Amino acid sequence: MRELVLGLIQTHATDNAADNRARTEKKIAQAAQKGANVICTQELFATPYFCRKQDPALFDLAEPIDGPSAQMLSKAAKDNGVVVVGSIFEDRGGDVYHNTALVFDTDGSLMGLYRKMHIPQDPGFEEKFYFTEGDLGFRVFDTPFGKIGVLICWDQWYPEAARLTALKGAQVLIYPTAIGWLKEEKKELGAAQHTAWETVQRGHAVANGCYVAAINRVGVEGDTEFWGQSFVANPYGEIIAKAPEDKEDILIVPCDLKLQKDFRRIWPFFRDRRIDAYADITRRRID
Amino acid sequence: MRELVLGLIQTHATDNAADNRARTEKKIAQAAQKGANVICTQELFATPYFCRKQDPALFDLAEPIDGPSAQMLSKAAKDNGVVVVGSIFEDRGGDVYHNTALVFDTDGSLMGLYRKMHIPQDPGFEEKFYFTEGDLGFRVFDTPFGKIGVLICWDQWYPEAARLTALKGAQVLIYPTAIGWLKEEKKELGAAQHTAWETVQRGHAVANGCYVAAINRVGVEGDTEFWGQSFVANPYGEIIAKAPEDKEDILIVPCDLKLQKDFRRIWPFFRDRRIDAYADITRRRID
Repeated sequence: MRELVLGLIQTHATDNAADNRARTEKKIAQAAQKGANVICTQELFATPYFCRKQDPALFDLAEPIDGPSAQMLSKAAKDNGVVVVGSIFEDRGGDVYHNTALVFDTDGSLMGLYRKMHIPQDPGFEEKFYFTEGDLGFRVFDTPFGKIGVLICWDQWYPEAARLTALKGAQVLIYPTAIGWLKEEKKELGAAQHTAWETVQRGHAVANGCYVAAINRVGVEGDTEFWGQSFVANPYGEIIAKAPEDKEDILIVPCDLKLQKDFRRIWPFFRDRRIDAYADITRRRID
Repeated sequence: MRELVLGLIQTHATDNAADNRARTEKKIAQAAQKGANVICTQELFATPYFCRKQDPALFDLAEPIDGPSAQMLSKAAKDNGVVVVGSIFEDRGGDVYHNTALVFDTDGSLMGLYRKMHIPQDPGFEEKFYFTEGDLGFRVFDTPFGKIGVLICWDQWYPEAARLTALKGAQVLIYPTAIGWLKEEKKELGAAQHTAWETVQRGHAVANGCYVAAINRVGVEGDTEFWGQSFVANPYGEIIAKAPEDKEDILIVPCDLKLQKDFRRIWPFFRDRRIDAYADITRRRID
């Protein structure tokens, strides 16, 4: 097995989709030149984070899974001989839309897709208006460099998503993300919200003995300041690479899959799961 | 509802069970005098951490749930008008033994017990030799001060345990613990292991929107250096109180249950759980 080296593309987005695609394509090539072989975009990289408001006209931004963004991602994977994980606004046809990640193999072929399973809806993050929740379940992609699980943003708050993806064999969990501060909340809750976001994902790394990567955008869009700080955590939950809060960056991060295997032997959590006692996880609440 | 104020008793243990009980009883009274109303001992407070080795003679250390440790805990609860969570080596009868936490109400009555569900077995932590895994499932105790979930040590690595306890209504998760460094590992892995331990529990706080408290022992027993650092994390995963690594301490920590409620409304994770897609959590692995 070759070494798995993550490349995380933290950038901004404008209203010009062609420009967002062109810049991202260039950054994928740069990441590959620096040694990355599993390269991931931020969530919905081709557009601004349009879910800040509910506007029927914005469904025009969606693309099929062989649309212009997919074509660019496929080409970038093939041109650079790398795996590319790209997040798009999917037009599935039949007036059904998803928040979807596409995974392209080193030859540019589509390995598969993941449709975001957990959809948020809160002020400034009005996703339930746009996206049908995923119906493909949790997915792992057996790339030439290692097994990666792909999840998206709001999924990162759910231990169930991380666990199910890890049980399918994921050695690295990758979360394309769009998260930021609302102007009116930042002063009071900003630091705490960022800590919570980072911490819950570091926790998934520990509980599942895997690497975790989050790729977030930067820039101010309307009242939302996207907080960047893309990062990679190792299985101990230690942050081994982190991008700035307010600047673009490309993180190149080797993942030590020997360390990952050793971690699971030193602390063999999977051995002791009480699968006889977990059935109620499928209940909404337990009275 | 009165305010919930945790009292965490971080201490050492000797081979003298009567002394361990007497010191812990005194510390419970001190914690209550300082305002704590839900007071918790470290794991197996009445004895050294005997699971460092496998020795049939050590089953003699076990006690029934109305034995001397239970009697002390009950009396301490009643004398001080507080809830007491105490961790004992339970002799269940019939040559069956558990690692058990007892919860006493403010009048000294037993509210119930929790039997450790996840049992470790690794060098220096030979618990599968002593303890049958719990058969009571995950438990919440509706105290006069708030709803507490009680879990024990190795449980803290399992998101399923935290989730199921939170789904039953826990506002605070309490983990009596005995964890430390093995001499031969500390230099290379010590810092990473402690980070992992703290991080995974902070992650449970975030994912479940609750407070989390861990109560660990201090002192060197054989080749094991117990790392103390008992702590409380708020729902944002922020550590709001922490004891030293190598000294005894009593942490007095008010938990803001209004903040806890607000957190769950700002980030309503429970709303979006994909209970239709979690059934495979009960599988050992997913091929």
